[in-house]
Amino acid sequence: MVLELGSASATGIVTFWTYLMFDYKSLLTNRVRQSGAAQVSSIFKAADRPGVISLSGGLPNPKFFPIDKLIAATEKVMRADGHNILQYGGSEGYLPLRKWVAERYCKQGVEVVPEMVVMTSGSLQGMDITGRTFIEPGDTVLIEAPAFVGAIQTLLIYQPRFVGVPVAADGVDVQALGRAISENPGAKLFEACPSFQNPSGVLYSQAARDGVAAVVRDLAILVVEDDPYAELRFDGSQPVSLRRELGDQCITLGSFSKIVSPGMRVGWTVASRALAPYYALGKQTTDSHASNFAQAVIWQFLMDNDIDAHIAGINATYKIQRDAMITAIAKYFPPEVKTTVPLGGMFIWATMPDDLDAMKMFHDAVDHDLVAVVPGGPFYTDGKRGNHQFRMSYSTVEPDVIEEGIRRLGRALARHLDAPSAS
Amino acid sequence: MVLELGSASATGIVTFWTYLMFDYKSLLTNRVRQSGAAQVSSIFKAADRPGVISLSGGLPNPKFFPIDKLIAATEKVMRADGHNILQYGGSEGYLPLRKWVAERYCKQGVEVVPEMVVMTSGSLQGMDITGRTFIEPGDTVLIEAPAFVGAIQTLLIYQPRFVGVPVAADGVDVQALGRAISENPGAKLFEACPSFQNPSGVLYSQAARDGVAAVVRDLAILVVEDDPYAELRFDGSQPVSLRRELGDQCITLGSFSKIVSPGMRVGWTVASRALAPYYALGKQTTDSHASNFAQAVIWQFLMDNDIDAHIAGINATYKIQRDAMITAIAKYFPPEVKTTVPLGGMFIWATMPDDLDAMKMFHDAVDHDLVAVVPGGPFYTDGKRGNHQFRMSYSTVEPDVIEEGIRRLGRALARHLDAPSAS
Repeated sequence: MVLELGSASATGIVTFWTYLMFDYKSLLTNRVRQSGAAQVSSIFKAADRPGVISLSGGLPNPKFFPIDKLIAATEKVMRADGHNILQYGGSEGYLPLRKWVAERYCKQGVEVVPEMVVMTSGSLQGMDITGRTFIEPGDTVLIEAPAFVGAIQTLLIYQPRFVGVPVAADGVDVQALGRAISENPGAKLFEACPSFQNPSGVLYSQAARDGVAAVVRDLAILVVEDDPYAELRFDGSQPVSLRRELGDQCITLGSFSKIVSPGMRVGWTVASRALAPYYALGKQTTDSHASNFAQAVIWQFLMDNDIDAHIAGINATYKIQRDAMITAIAKYFPPEVKTTVPLGGMFIWATMPDDLDAMKMFHDAVDHDLVAVVPGGPFYTDGKRGNHQFRMSYSTVEPDVIEEGIRRLGRALARHLDAPSAS
Repeated sequence: MVLELGSASATGIVTFWTYLMFDYKSLLTNRVRQSGAAQVSSIFKAADRPGVISLSGGLPNPKFFPIDKLIAATEKVMRADGHNILQYGGSEGYLPLRKWVAERYCKQGVEVVPEMVVMTSGSLQGMDITGRTFIEPGDTVLIEAPAFVGAIQTLLIYQPRFVGVPVAADGVDVQALGRAISENPGAKLFEACPSFQNPSGVLYSQAARDGVAAVVRDLAILVVEDDPYAELRFDGSQPVSLRRELGDQCITLGSFSKIVSPGMRVGWTVASRALAPYYALGKQTTDSHASNFAQAVIWQFLMDNDIDAHIAGINATYKIQRDAMITAIAKYFPPEVKTTVPLGGMFIWATMPDDLDAMKMFHDAVDHDLVAVVPGGPFYTDGKRGNHQFRMSYSTVEPDVIEEGIRRLGRALARHLDAPSAS
């Protein structure tokens, strides 16, 4: 639709031309027009059909949502502090919960004080505030390749120039990170998800963590650690925030979404004493503060229950489901398809031979085999890589359904390997 | 702090210079550096002292927070739908609540369907999403003068060029709005709070509403109606959303903050069928969706209680408190100080003679008279107007305390009128 916004006529009178049914879309910003978020939504919608086994979700398992305990926590904290909880609060968040978050880091040996913690409406909002705080249009942001698609879409609002840094089985390729920094001396941020990354499930080794710290040391670049999965570890390894290696050069985004409930929308940011006030400012200018109600209920739940036992229960189930998926992959996938073996988190990442197209395979598998995954392209910032990769999740699927889903997927994969161009 | 980001030496090796205690503030964006939000926070902090009567807050009265009813609603809705509420939800928000919002507009005679409604984390977030959806750096935004300081600070993140349009006793100056549009043909938005405006308390007359509609008709400009106070009417008048006059040219931002609780952080946007998906996209890229928990509890509260009776109770009290403030102003204020008489909402706006400085008066009144208001400057976008104006709120203060506060303020005002330059 063409719109003449206003033109000075020969008589000097400004005239306006428009359509009665004008829909105002001409007023949209470039950042919104260029967003690929709708594309990702359409993938999830395509998978949402009766009979389809979905391995595409990135959802925590709802059977661990502590409904009764949250009801009890609501009654207790509202009776004790209701007039305060239901009033406007500070942009930094509910102080008792900020203290709990700080103490949990301290227990891991990472020095965090409540003044460094700003509560957010989920960890994704921490990414949004990071964007508004640090990214001017055209600024270079180094980001893992692949990376969490939600982080990509949110940072894109601030119109950065992305430079992807490959992730290997034991973490980001530290040499590639060093080269990317040398070649982009103005880069402000490196976005990383070092513990059970979405989408790859990769856990950074200690060597990778030390390597990142060595590469960025003394440089004017911040590492943004997106860290919602760290607690979901299966085998006794204890991933600790990169803040241990990086100190104030690290900004950590955390969340209760994977360990309590995502529907509460409560997460947090940890930044240095110097930068935390800018996160509070960012929060103030977007939605004043996170829901006091949700924050206070979570805090009371944490006070009255053993969160570590709760998380252990989640992890025991996720480990069984991961094992079921790994076992089924060994049984049903063609050997040409390589997959990660995550030590925690919710995701397995699959790589097909280069010439296969995961988007075609996805549509074919949904239509003919009734199984859904997430094609890999949207997890990269360059629109090129990842077209032969896909993500699978085991978090919400029972082991027998996982086996059947992987069996169906193996059938679709075999078909595509036989005739990649025909698919 | 000066930082050398990187310089090629004679040998071709890139060397980096920095400080060990580097605080990374050099990485902050201009939008954050230029924000005046910290200034406003400092005003509220200055007022937060023992013994000071605060007429500065913009808070709803906590005695109307329905603590017991929200506890009951939590238990009921969590038992009925807990697994859904605690899971991730759609970016548009909790469907039953979107339906309730749409129906409430329909009861007013304004056609709204649930597809037009996107739930937000308070109405301020609706302003933030409006900014990311429509404002490129340098775009012209017409805005009331004075305007809600939170709206100004939030829109400033998107670096617009503001053009202020004066607000008179019966609404925006329609002729001035027409001139502003003619002189700024690329202006995309007009930001307005037509019902009991923050800070002035002004209610747009029907003539002003019709005038706004006539002036913008057929132009490619959207009216952003910030409308959190409309339900707080004292005298039977029924302000209806500007959507009645403007149709799809209006984007309305609503909130449960003033009629249920601000600590829940639940508001909404109403946009056309064409634009609502972009609000959902904006929500998706900032924090996925509003807290399902808070949304569902509010919905259940609305189902099980008479919200109109609840609001009538709030308004009866606010009317008593407004009357107490008006009576005390007549008794204690110098006649040179003019004030609005709001028909609803939470605020009275005062205008002193031009040569008086409200910021000086504010500090003097806090220090010597132990009473606080909000100086008028931050409510304007040009940093010039409003320096002789200030905002008072009666919503949270008992009538006898209001009288004492206004008595103290009258004393401070009289002193400044006697010797404006000495203060």
